[in-house]
Amino acid sequence: MSSTRDIDALIEMMARLPGLGPRSARRAVLHLIRKRALLLTPLADLMQTVAATARECLRCGNVGTTDICDICLSEKRATGELCVVEDVADLWAMERSQVFKGRYHVLGGTLSALDAVGPEDLRIPQLLTRVEEESITEVILALNATVDGQTTAHYIADQLDGRVRLTSLAQGVPIGGELDYLDDGTITAALRARKDL
Amino acid sequence: MSSTRDIDALIEMMARLPGLGPRSARRAVLHLIRKRALLLTPLADLMQTVAATARECLRCGNVGTTDICDICLSEKRATGELCVVEDVADLWAMERSQVFKGRYHVLGGTLSALDAVGPEDLRIPQLLTRVEEESITEVILALNATVDGQTTAHYIADQLDGRVRLTSLAQGVPIGGELDYLDDGTITAALRARKDL
Ligand SMILES: [Zn+2]
Ligand SMILES: [Zn+2]
Repeated sequence: MSSTRDIDALIEMMARLPGLGPRSARRAVLHLIRKRALLLTPLADLMQTVAATARECLRCGNVGTTDICDICLSEKRATGELCVVEDVADLWAMERSQVFKGRYHVLGGTLSALDAVGPEDLRIPQLLTRVEEESITEVILALNATVDGQTTAHYIADQLDGRVRLTSLAQGVPIGGELDYLDDGTITAALRARKDL
Repeated sequence: MSSTRDIDALIEMMARLPGLGPRSARRAVLHLIRKRALLLTPLADLMQTVAATARECLRCGNVGTTDICDICLSEKRATGELCVVEDVADLWAMERSQVFKGRYHVLGGTLSALDAVGPEDLRIPQLLTRVEEESITEVILALNATVDGQTTAHYIADQLDGRVRLTSLAQGVPIGGELDYLDDGTITAALRARKDL
């Protein structure tokens, strides 16, 4: 239908976003059209702004609007602790917990033999350089507890062995987690790391 | 964090869309930023276009980019059948089934004593006028099988009683079911087995 071509194209583009499907894209677009002055126009403006200004931090790989991100620039974060994460989403998750006061290094993925992802395809060389050049005392490997995540953690640990203190996030039962919903690996890890009360 | 203010605002705005929450909004925005040239800029442009051109059809309430929508303008659709739906999403669901060849009338909601929605708050007066002025032979009430949907159907049936053939979708629509959630085959079956009221 010619008069709805742009609307159809918008639905199709929205449906390709992670977490959205055709149905939720249709509902989102209808909602946006109903509130076009209040919501659609401001959203489009904001997207234009972000498209023009968003960039990856040259140092850590975080997403921001400056060449070096606020976390890297903050003197308060110069604790000597460097937290290595796979993805910016993981960095944001760490930040929401408000417990880590150091800086980050975003790998941009994990090593994967299957997908032919090697160290040079990630920000691993930059990590090794940072450990050399910045006053890093501890590297915290906060990689996902997946096979590829743990392979990547072991590779980085090998590379940094003896040059810095290396730690990783403790594995166990998440707060509020029900055993019945956890995979065997998590339960095994939680049992092995059990603590005296 | 000042350098991520626009990004945070974008996530917050996306999270308010139906079907998206904070987590899916974060993932969608990260995805858009990664593909900012390929995806974010075109999406923003498309939203601007839709915001500037989208409007409700003055006759039926469908959403399009012209004052009178393509369905209302198409001579092929002048079958004398008028399908009354609650919402544009329901019209789209009917169109996807490709079984209905007539025209539509979008009410824009349902009567609701609880929410103080009366006939004048919907496009019910316009429906009565259309039945008078257009060569309508049959009004198909394709309202959701909810209490409010059926209350609205009965109200419209009362108003139109004796002036036109009145039918409703019957077979295939589950109790409490909403059209927009149904597969195309169910809608097709429901339309084919429509019954006189
Ligand atoms: Zn940074
Ligand atoms: Zn129309």
